[in-house]
Amino acid sequence: MNIETATVAFDELELECGVTLAPVDCAYETYGTLNTAKSNAILVAHAFSGDAHAAGEGGWWSNMVGPGKGFDTDLYFVICANVLGGCRGTTGPGSINPVTGCPWGMAFPAVTIADMVRLQKKLIDHLGIPRLLAVAGGSMGGMQALEWAVAYPDRVLAALPIATTTRHSAQQIAFNEVGRQAIMADPDWNSGNYYDRRPPARGLAVARMVGHITYMSDESMREKFGRRLRSSDEFEVESYLKYRGYKFVDRFDANSYLYITRAMDSYDLTQRGSLQTLFENIATRFLVISFTSDWLYPSYQSLEIVSALRSRNCDVAYVNLAAVYGHDSFLVEVKEQTEIVRGFLGSTFREGARGGS
Amino acid sequence: MNIETATVAFDELELECGVTLAPVDCAYETYGTLNTAKSNAILVAHAFSGDAHAAGEGGWWSNMVGPGKGFDTDLYFVICANVLGGCRGTTGPGSINPVTGCPWGMAFPAVTIADMVRLQKKLIDHLGIPRLLAVAGGSMGGMQALEWAVAYPDRVLAALPIATTTRHSAQQIAFNEVGRQAIMADPDWNSGNYYDRRPPARGLAVARMVGHITYMSDESMREKFGRRLRSSDEFEVESYLKYRGYKFVDRFDANSYLYITRAMDSYDLTQRGSLQTLFENIATRFLVISFTSDWLYPSYQSLEIVSALRSRNCDVAYVNLAAVYGHDSFLVEVKEQTEIVRGFLGSTFREGARGGS
Repeated sequence: MNIETATVAFDELELECGVTLAPVDCAYETYGTLNTAKSNAILVAHAFSGDAHAAGEGGWWSNMVGPGKGFDTDLYFVICANVLGGCRGTTGPGSINPVTGCPWGMAFPAVTIADMVRLQKKLIDHLGIPRLLAVAGGSMGGMQALEWAVAYPDRVLAALPIATTTRHSAQQIAFNEVGRQAIMADPDWNSGNYYDRRPPARGLAVARMVGHITYMSDESMREKFGRRLRSSDEFEVESYLKYRGYKFVDRFDANSYLYITRAMDSYDLTQRGSLQTLFENIATRFLVISFTSDWLYPSYQSLEIVSALRSRNCDVAYVNLAAVYGHDSFLVEVKEQTEIVRGFLGSTFREGARGGS
Repeated sequence: MNIETATVAFDELELECGVTLAPVDCAYETYGTLNTAKSNAILVAHAFSGDAHAAGEGGWWSNMVGPGKGFDTDLYFVICANVLGGCRGTTGPGSINPVTGCPWGMAFPAVTIADMVRLQKKLIDHLGIPRLLAVAGGSMGGMQALEWAVAYPDRVLAALPIATTTRHSAQQIAFNEVGRQAIMADPDWNSGNYYDRRPPARGLAVARMVGHITYMSDESMREKFGRRLRSSDEFEVESYLKYRGYKFVDRFDANSYLYITRAMDSYDLTQRGSLQTLFENIATRFLVISFTSDWLYPSYQSLEIVSALRSRNCDVAYVNLAAVYGHDSFLVEVKEQTEIVRGFLGSTFREGARGGS
C-alpha cells in the first residue's frame, strides 16, 4: 500500500473571503488503484486535527481504510488530502507568504469549509477523476462530505457525513472558542508570530485537553479512567489529558488550530437556503451515521440532515449506532461501521456502474 | 436584612492532610433571626466560585434566600460562610502565612470538603447553635451538605444536597483539570507567587470559560445565543464567554481555583465505606434535587445517593426537576425549587419542634 504523502501545487485558489491564494499546495495520499473507468475513487475527508495520512501505520482511519476494510482498497481508490489551512503539507498559516517570504501567521486569509472542498475539487480534477464514487468523513470531515454534495452534486455519487452537522451549535462554537482563547492567552503565541521561536505549546496543549474531553463520553471516561490514581496526587485522567495535550504540540500548528476551528464554526449550510431547498435537485445518495453517546455532535444534528433529505425524497440511509465512545466513536467503533459502509459503497458502486459515469 | 460580612478567627483547624492551620479566619453572613430555641438555623453552602454573600443584592442565591423565599428569612436564621481555601474572607492560599508574613501561595496545605465542613462546624459552635435545622447547597455546596450529614448526623436535622454527587466522575475531574492547567500554563501564575504582581488573568479567564460551558446546557446555550453574531467575526457566545471569563478575574484568586477544585475532585464519600454503610445510622432527613438538563452533575449521581438512602430506610425525598439551564438550574430555576424547599423545610421544622432539639 502506498503511504507516501504527495504534494501538488496549484497556481491559485480563490477563497470565499475574496482573497486569491497563489500558489496553493495540497498534500494528499492515495490507497488502492484507480480502475480504468475511473469510477472507484473515494475521497475521505479528515476531521479537525487529522491529515492526509488516513490509512496504513498511524493513519487516522487505518481501521476503516485498507484491504478488506470498510473502505476496501482492494476495490476502491481512496484519496485523502490535508485540508486548506492545515499544517501537514497543504497551504496554511504556517506556509510561506510569497509576498513577504515569511510565514503567513495571522495574515493568512480566512478559510472556509467550502474553500477546503474547492481545493479538493482541484485535486480530483488533477487526478483525472470525472466523478467520485463517494466522499466520506466524520466531524469536520462530514461537513466536507455535505459540502461536496451541495457544491458539486454531479461530481459525487454518494456522500457519507458521519457524526457531523450542517452548522455548529452555540455549545460547539463555545468549546472551540475556549481552545482559541487558550492559545491566544499564551504569550508564546505572540499574535501568531512564533515560527522562528518557541511555539505556544502550553496554550495549544490546554486547547487540546478541552477537545479530548468533548471527544469522549462520560461513560467511556468512566470505563477508561474512573477515579484511578496515577500517583498519590494525580488522577489517571489528568495524566492522560496532559500527555495527549502536550503530544499534540509536536504535530500541530497553533495558528492552524485557530483557522480551522474558525472554518468549522462559521460553516452554516442553512445560510444558503433551507436544507430542503439545498437538497432539492441532488441525485447524490446519502449514508448518514451518528453515535448514541456523541454529545459533541448529538444525533439530533444528523437527524436534521436526514429529515431534510427525506422531505425531498433523496436517497438516504441513516443509522444511529449504539456506541459508548462519544464523538470518538466514528474513529474507534469500527465493527458495525465497517459493515454498513461496505454495504452502502458496494450498492453505490453497482448502481454507478449500471447508470454509467 | 443584614448583609454585612462578618469574620470570626479561630485559633486553629486541624486538616485531613495532618497540617494544623493556626489561626483560621471564617467569613460569613447571616440573614433573619435566630429563635430563642435556636432551632431555626439553616446553613447554606456555596458552590465552587461562590462566597458568604448568599442573599441580598448580588447574592449568589438571592432568589432562594430572603423574606418569603424558599429559604424564608422571616422564619429561618440562614448562615452562609466562605469556604476554607477560598478568597473571600476565609483563610485560603491568598492569606498571610503567619510564619513567613507572606501569602501562602502554593505552600498552603491541601484542603478537603471535610475540612471545609469542620470549619463550618466551628462557626456553628461559635454561633451557639446546638443543631442546624438544615444544611443545603448545590454542586460543591451539595457535597458539603452530604458531608455534614455523614460527619455530624446529630448536628443537622435535614440535608439538601442539590445537583451534586458523592464523588466526581472522570469527566468532572477532567474539566477541572483543564481549568487548573490553563491557570498553571499562564506565566503570570509564577508557581502561585503573584500576590505582589500581575495575577494569571488570562489563564484564570480561560478556566472560567470552560466552567461556564459546563454549567449551561446545549439547549440553554441555543436559546441564549444560537448562532447570533456580535460582530462580523464574533459570535455572541464567544463574546459572552470572554466577558464572563475576564470578569471572574476581578473577584477570584487563581490559587483558590486550584485548591478548591482539587478539594472537589478528591472528595469521595464512598472511600469511607459503601454509601449504604455510611447512611446506616443517620436520622437526618434528605431532600435530594437534580435537574434533567444538568450534564455536569447528571441525575444518575443524585439517584445513587437516593438509592443508598432508601436501601437504609432513611427519610429521603427526591425530585428530578425538568429545567433547561443545565447545572446552572440550581441557581436560576427558582419557581419549583422554592415550593419544594419551602415545604420540606416547613415539615422538618415542625417535626424538629415536636421531637425537640
